[in-house]
Amino acid sequence: MNRLLGVFLIASAAFAQENPAAQAAHKWRKQHERAIVDEFIALLSIPNIATDRANIQRNADFIAKMLEKRGITPKLVSIPGANPVVFGEIRTPGATRTLVFYAHYDGQPLDPKEWATPPFSPVLRDKSLEKDGRVIPLPASQFDPESRIYARSAGDDKTNVMTLMAALDAIRAAGLKTKSNIKFAFEGEEEAGSINLGSILDANKQLFSGDMWFICDGPVHQTRQQLITFGARGITTVDVTLYGPRRELHSGHYGNWAPNPAMALAQLLASMKDESGHILVDHFYDGVEPLSDTEKRAVANAPDADRDLMRELWLGSTENAPRHLADLINVPSLNIRGMASSRTGAGASNVIPSTATASIDMRLVKGMDHAETARRLIAHIKSRGYFIVDHDPSPEERMSHPKVAKVVVEEGGYNAVRTSMDLPISQEIIRTVESARGKTVLLPTTGGSAPLDVIEKALGTRTIAIPTANHDDNQHTFNENLRIQNLWDGIELMAALLTM
Amino acid sequence: MNRLLGVFLIASAAFAQENPAAQAAHKWRKQHERAIVDEFIALLSIPNIATDRANIQRNADFIAKMLEKRGITPKLVSIPGANPVVFGEIRTPGATRTLVFYAHYDGQPLDPKEWATPPFSPVLRDKSLEKDGRVIPLPASQFDPESRIYARSAGDDKTNVMTLMAALDAIRAAGLKTKSNIKFAFEGEEEAGSINLGSILDANKQLFSGDMWFICDGPVHQTRQQLITFGARGITTVDVTLYGPRRELHSGHYGNWAPNPAMALAQLLASMKDESGHILVDHFYDGVEPLSDTEKRAVANAPDADRDLMRELWLGSTENAPRHLADLINVPSLNIRGMASSRTGAGASNVIPSTATASIDMRLVKGMDHAETARRLIAHIKSRGYFIVDHDPSPEERMSHPKVAKVVVEEGGYNAVRTSMDLPISQEIIRTVESARGKTVLLPTTGGSAPLDVIEKALGTRTIAIPTANHDDNQHTFNENLRIQNLWDGIELMAALLTM
Repeated sequence: MNRLLGVFLIASAAFAQENPAAQAAHKWRKQHERAIVDEFIALLSIPNIATDRANIQRNADFIAKMLEKRGITPKLVSIPGANPVVFGEIRTPGATRTLVFYAHYDGQPLDPKEWATPPFSPVLRDKSLEKDGRVIPLPASQFDPESRIYARSAGDDKTNVMTLMAALDAIRAAGLKTKSNIKFAFEGEEEAGSINLGSILDANKQLFSGDMWFICDGPVHQTRQQLITFGARGITTVDVTLYGPRRELHSGHYGNWAPNPAMALAQLLASMKDESGHILVDHFYDGVEPLSDTEKRAVANAPDADRDLMRELWLGSTENAPRHLADLINVPSLNIRGMASSRTGAGASNVIPSTATASIDMRLVKGMDHAETARRLIAHIKSRGYFIVDHDPSPEERMSHPKVAKVVVEEGGYNAVRTSMDLPISQEIIRTVESARGKTVLLPTTGGSAPLDVIEKALGTRTIAIPTANHDDNQHTFNENLRIQNLWDGIELMAALLTM
Repeated sequence: MNRLLGVFLIASAAFAQENPAAQAAHKWRKQHERAIVDEFIALLSIPNIATDRANIQRNADFIAKMLEKRGITPKLVSIPGANPVVFGEIRTPGATRTLVFYAHYDGQPLDPKEWATPPFSPVLRDKSLEKDGRVIPLPASQFDPESRIYARSAGDDKTNVMTLMAALDAIRAAGLKTKSNIKFAFEGEEEAGSINLGSILDANKQLFSGDMWFICDGPVHQTRQQLITFGARGITTVDVTLYGPRRELHSGHYGNWAPNPAMALAQLLASMKDESGHILVDHFYDGVEPLSDTEKRAVANAPDADRDLMRELWLGSTENAPRHLADLINVPSLNIRGMASSRTGAGASNVIPSTATASIDMRLVKGMDHAETARRLIAHIKSRGYFIVDHDPSPEERMSHPKVAKVVVEEGGYNAVRTSMDLPISQEIIRTVESARGKTVLLPTTGGSAPLDVIEKALGTRTIAIPTANHDDNQHTFNENLRIQNLWDGIELMAALLTM
């Protein structure tokens, strides 16, 4: 544990017991650790890639049963071709507002070969894999708070299906009551870009309506302090493929003559961003809305975890230095998420590759439009002399243009949103979270691109993101994990929010 | 068949019967097509990646038996840790010179998943896969000359073990005699950079000595005309890995702050070459020896296949245009042979990659030193602000430098060589080849980087490259193949050379 962490954990512990529902959750959890983890592991054992329809259905059915077990009548709400949203509701007599708790049960695509243990066979390790954590048996009762559960979606985002269900159990065991109407909405294709969520909500406005949607997703602050984010980055993802010779060619016989698509891709990508991190696509930053004074203050007050993070991540420099991470999250980004051409390593051979591909995700901030941002990137590629197609180019297309790029904008882009921190309900949420979890980091924007925009547009509601997972949960990559203490903290947090 | 091809094939057919040994080979082959292909297929069925020692030994033993069957006592010549060179010898009474025929029996590394049929289960197709060729049974006697054998090393370079053995059979069946002493040297690690060949030859100078080494390797001209090349490009291969965060990070939460190694690699690679194809590494072109007048004339006389090749390869432009391929082979090149970072396609996820790798092969021409060229590339990387290591960098190395690059120069680099076309023996070889194969394309340099330099240095001999395979044989990549007519032509060609 680093120095910063130590200070914050002590601060956090001192505050943790003010909220009665959080207190009840704390007590109840201590008596039911194994049962909670058993139920969580059963949920994590069901493969949940959004395209795997049969298993997605199994997940939805399992979560429906979790609700049913708690006396809530589940609904699987869908449209043709979509994965169902699992819905549940608690009507509270006399309540004057409705709070909706959102989480998603699908997970990022993966390559099982990269995982230390299979992604859908959850295991407990005594500490993180990076600290050489070993697989240990589940204890009968008390879990080491530093132990971690390894499985796809342990952190992102079956976590919050579990924290909400366990929080409900705890509240009821303590005889506490909800004050607001409560709804649950568990999505099954967030990692596929929530491409159907807007239509599902549109078709069921009444059912899903609420005064506030809590987006229970994402990691807490790197200092391990609780985090509330009042918005999220938008996203658009663009795949670019460039073409060399029809077939891979011997690089000795054709090198210098046949165009190399890997080099062309390098030149194209390098034209998009300078070495300090500034994006060179024309008009990329146009329309970005500046932060309000409250938001600027929140960013300035956020703990500076950069130095510790650099040590943790073995970094000798950062992009856009000297600006800090908490600040840079409010600036749009252009990221190469993957790049491939021919083979490297032991399988490499002396060829001119036939194609080269890069997948680029652009994270947007308020004021940018996802479709327009994708169009600006395409215009940039065009300005570099490329003939643009959205399909595998035909031989004729390849032969009749000096440079051809296949550019595919992935479905499921959305815009960034920000809810004002100054609203009365925002202030009430901050107080509630702090009463359960102590000193809290407030940020205008989470780095993750949750479908806040889609939800706000469909329902005219507001959204605030409440994360639970550890920051080093390897979400979106292999060996995803959840630190047990984060699971416990999340239950206390959700108990407080469910009773506000 | 394109227009150019048509013209050249007619020309070729008209010349083909002048050489008595070639005539004998033609006749003999027509009666033994199936037997030749059966023996070839048996040879191709033995996996032959240089690192697969057990199978390399099986190849060597099989080739030794092929020699033995022809009354030649084989020797497996090696040094500790090396793959054996299979040696054989025909002593000709009264001969005043020795001709050495070199081929290699190892093949390029591969990924079997990329192959239409398994690389070591040879099949015959009625035409090329690109023309939707289908697997057909082996005919009992007459093969369609346009049919092709698909297997690793069908074209590169078990081909010439087979053409030489079949040519020997044909000469003997016709009662023809060799005039020179003949030696065979079949190498087992050419595709691994011939890293031990120099030491093996050094330790066995007498055994391998000869007046001329024929490097029987590589493809014929793209017009299908016979090709003689009087030298070969040198090569050095350099693998570069750049580093981002220790683990892949969520690109929403860290994009703009954590350095992206894929973008850094794109920027680094783009700094090595401009968009017209000129290499920007300092001193890269220093010391290049210009072509002689004869060589320049040969290049100018070489048929221009560029336009047909562009059509065949679906190219809308070429690098270094308007210069031609035959010209550009005499210029050094820098080629990205493979590039990888994180994942693309269905497995892509929204991460900042942890590493990015490119493998670069540089093809050298006479006057350049392979080790010095690699040093110049490393100096270039250094000049871009990178701290260079030759191993996986430690966390401390990564944290104490803003930019770290692992740069590994592969073993087995060698320099380019060129034998003068004006030597009497060069002229005699040209006459012999033309008497067997008709109009012949002469080039100062083959694109392939055969170990001519290693052989010349170890033995003080001369080398000339005599290719056999079709130009579109997919050598070095998946679905490697040999067009049957090229096998037949090669047998006639080798018969002529064996009897000169």
